[in-house]
Amino acid sequence: MITELREIMKAQSEEYTSDQDLRLPQPPLNKASVSNKLISLTKDFDSVIKNNHFLNILNTRTSKRKYTEEFLTLAELAFLLWATQGVKQVVGRERKATFRTVPSAGARHPFETYLFVNRVEELEQGLYHYLPLEHKLEYLGAIENQTEKVSEAFCGQIFFATAAVSFVWTVIPYRSEWRYTVNAQKYVLVDAGHLCQNLYFASESIGCGACGIGAYEQALADELLGLNSDPSSAEDNEFVVYAASVGKVAKKEE
Amino acid sequence: MITELREIMKAQSEEYTSDQDLRLPQPPLNKASVSNKLISLTKDFDSVIKNNHFLNILNTRTSKRKYTEEFLTLAELAFLLWATQGVKQVVGRERKATFRTVPSAGARHPFETYLFVNRVEELEQGLYHYLPLEHKLEYLGAIENQTEKVSEAFCGQIFFATAAVSFVWTVIPYRSEWRYTVNAQKYVLVDAGHLCQNLYFASESIGCGACGIGAYEQALADELLGLNSDPSSAEDNEFVVYAASVGKVAKKEE
Repeated sequence: MITELREIMKAQSEEYTSDQDLRLPQPPLNKASVSNKLISLTKDFDSVIKNNHFLNILNTRTSKRKYTEEFLTLAELAFLLWATQGVKQVVGRERKATFRTVPSAGARHPFETYLFVNRVEELEQGLYHYLPLEHKLEYLGAIENQTEKVSEAFCGQIFFATAAVSFVWTVIPYRSEWRYTVNAQKYVLVDAGHLCQNLYFASESIGCGACGIGAYEQALADELLGLNSDPSSAEDNEFVVYAASVGKVAKKEE
Repeated sequence: MITELREIMKAQSEEYTSDQDLRLPQPPLNKASVSNKLISLTKDFDSVIKNNHFLNILNTRTSKRKYTEEFLTLAELAFLLWATQGVKQVVGRERKATFRTVPSAGARHPFETYLFVNRVEELEQGLYHYLPLEHKLEYLGAIENQTEKVSEAFCGQIFFATAAVSFVWTVIPYRSEWRYTVNAQKYVLVDAGHLCQNLYFASESIGCGACGIGAYEQALADELLGLNSDPSSAEDNEFVVYAASVGKVAKKEE
């Protein structure tokens, strides 16, 4: 079975007619907001960044799982969202695409960003969704017993459940499959790594630490975010693909 | 079929006994050198970096496919190798692991780095392999008709075949499967994105541009590197998983 699974990591050279080839409509760039509790975010990051020294960040970055009780400011969180999915430019007329702070195969950017917030100034605890096109957050509501629920869905990783803020990236596969059919799945996973590496860098630059999280219970995590995780729902199917915790770190922790 | 392929992107919750659980020997951290043409690399990067301004790099990074004829210095290439796979620390006694400039699930770091070199000072054209533990390059030899061969294996992407240097990352799946069995494949692909994002950052910091490459012909690319791509070779199976081109860019190109 492992031999078969290894095929997933390879380039698929069989050619398939994509929905793009068939001139089917392009899926939306991102999910629209569903909440009327919108929070505007700054793009002025000069005063937010404490360590802007690229080589230093590169050399000192580690996966950090121990956080202080300190809150992040809303501007700091805005920067983390910008660094991971921020839209720098919308291009195209009929068929639009976004250029972001991270690359994505064919500029498909098939992700949505959700946050479990515990300690961010100006924000209530609970579940949020990032709107990259507007650079805004929407509040999706409180989660009853948030720590327990998140911990359970993320394999008991309590540092993730109790971090100042935890990022959860979902994928809407059709956004990439529309063009890449059977190559889309590999590209999505590679793209997820690209964006999380930016979270590492951005976190280190604001006195925080991050830790990427691959271990979670798919069904529980999807349910917690209220996703349409029905795979037969070809275009709207959405599920958790990757996650990461972020929190302030004591100055000497490596 | 797409529905089935989507499962690849999900967390696998079925539990399997791993070879690590069975106390089978841990695979080597990296492939040993096979050539006696070794090239030592510097770790002194202070004078190599031209733009050390993290926020600026984050905001101006794009996928760049147009390069000048300028050569990279060997120190610049050393920095790109360091940024993508550099070993900061070897930990453990019997079962060793490496901490690198990029994260990897369970510190498995299942990759090998190969280079197609066209324009790097002090280096002949041809194929190289990075030795992360020694921070050295080994020269594997010239490739006859390099441009044509590389272009053919990489779907005619001539900018990749003619770039100053092109990175090709292979995976030795067993290094991750030894611990993660059926979750390894997803982790490998995510990890590949992490490391390539560092290549983007590091390239921008030295006046270069990079472009991640997902499209290639698996069999041709594997053959070009002389890999043991036989999937039934459980522990030694190695194949191309991702790639990226790097070259100097004209100062105004975005």
